[in-house]
Amino acid sequence: MIKYPNGEVYKPVELKKNRKRAFGCKSSSNRGMSLENDITISCEYYNSIDQTCIYKRPTPIKVVRMDKINKAKIVEGYFSMKSTTDYNGIYRGKYMDFEAKETESTTSFSFKNIRSQQITHLRKVSKLGGIAFFVIRFKKLEETYLVDADTLLNYMDLNIRKSFPYKFIKEKGVLIEESYCPRLKLTEAIDKMYFK
Amino acid sequence: MIKYPNGEVYKPVELKKNRKRAFGCKSSSNRGMSLENDITISCEYYNSIDQTCIYKRPTPIKVVRMDKINKAKIVEGYFSMKSTTDYNGIYRGKYMDFEAKETESTTSFSFKNIRSQQITHLRKVSKLGGIAFFVIRFKKLEETYLVDADTLLNYMDLNIRKSFPYKFIKEKGVLIEESYCPRLKLTEAIDKMYFK
Repeated sequence: MIKYPNGEVYKPVELKKNRKRAFGCKSSSNRGMSLENDITISCEYYNSIDQTCIYKRPTPIKVVRMDKINKAKIVEGYFSMKSTTDYNGIYRGKYMDFEAKETESTTSFSFKNIRSQQITHLRKVSKLGGIAFFVIRFKKLEETYLVDADTLLNYMDLNIRKSFPYKFIKEKGVLIEESYCPRLKLTEAIDKMYFK
Repeated sequence: MIKYPNGEVYKPVELKKNRKRAFGCKSSSNRGMSLENDITISCEYYNSIDQTCIYKRPTPIKVVRMDKINKAKIVEGYFSMKSTTDYNGIYRGKYMDFEAKETESTTSFSFKNIRSQQITHLRKVSKLGGIAFFVIRFKKLEETYLVDADTLLNYMDLNIRKSFPYKFIKEKGVLIEESYCPRLKLTEAIDKMYFK
């Protein structure tokens, strides 16, 4: 058994796994990870090369009770609902705000997946001059699209259906390409949608 | 005792307190609240009138263990350090990112109050074209200033002192005026500093 000077046991397997996972480098072991994870590690990569400054908003937790002895320990807490979206930050001088969603369906994306607070929030961002969008993954098709929030929300307002047809998203959105590193070519998709 | 149809007891005192606190309306009961609270409720006000979309980033919590029976309940968790700043969002089409700090001193603001991750983060925001600043309150003087991040960080780089003199902050910053509602006239200060 190999030990570090501090007595901790050296674990070569864990080390290998962590290196592979860094900045979303794809391997057979982490293929099929959630969209949220893919986006987070892609943003970590872009942030590390100073191309963006985009972070996932932490899920707010309502802390009810702290430990009486260990003052840093939470012993009763509950996850709260975010009143905004998953991600925000800056890219090419513009404010970015977006929500990530996955669906098992191969034909449509249900309106039910979008919460009313998110609609209000993204409309406001867009009105204030920011870039607001959704990242939608059709898991079974292995396709991920960037779709402008206004485009989606205006379609919802038409009130003709209860979901976005896959074809609509394919036509109006930009396919986000996958790669070894970054996992999702997010900035390339943003460039295609907003900067051309 | 007056009861609601659901059996809950009507509490007029609590109602009054909540109404007063809404959107940072100042009253004797909440005077002297923390700077963070003052900023949060001022932003809530600006967000509600669609002038900004600025939120406090929740403090990330490392969840270690969930309850075995009540799956929504966290029974072991710890607060983690933020790698970024307290607030971000959009105003006048620009990305905003800032950190709020208070000091008991009446003559200076120590460099120790600023963490290295915050320096890195705010420098990056500014480089990417965003607006990065600090909100610094001298508690005993009852004065709150907005100071541009680059101005502060460049002064730190000079390495001539270990704190910002009060005079420097007063001269380079913009005094954020207080009012009944919003508590802090934050957007007015941003306008003075960046849009004139």
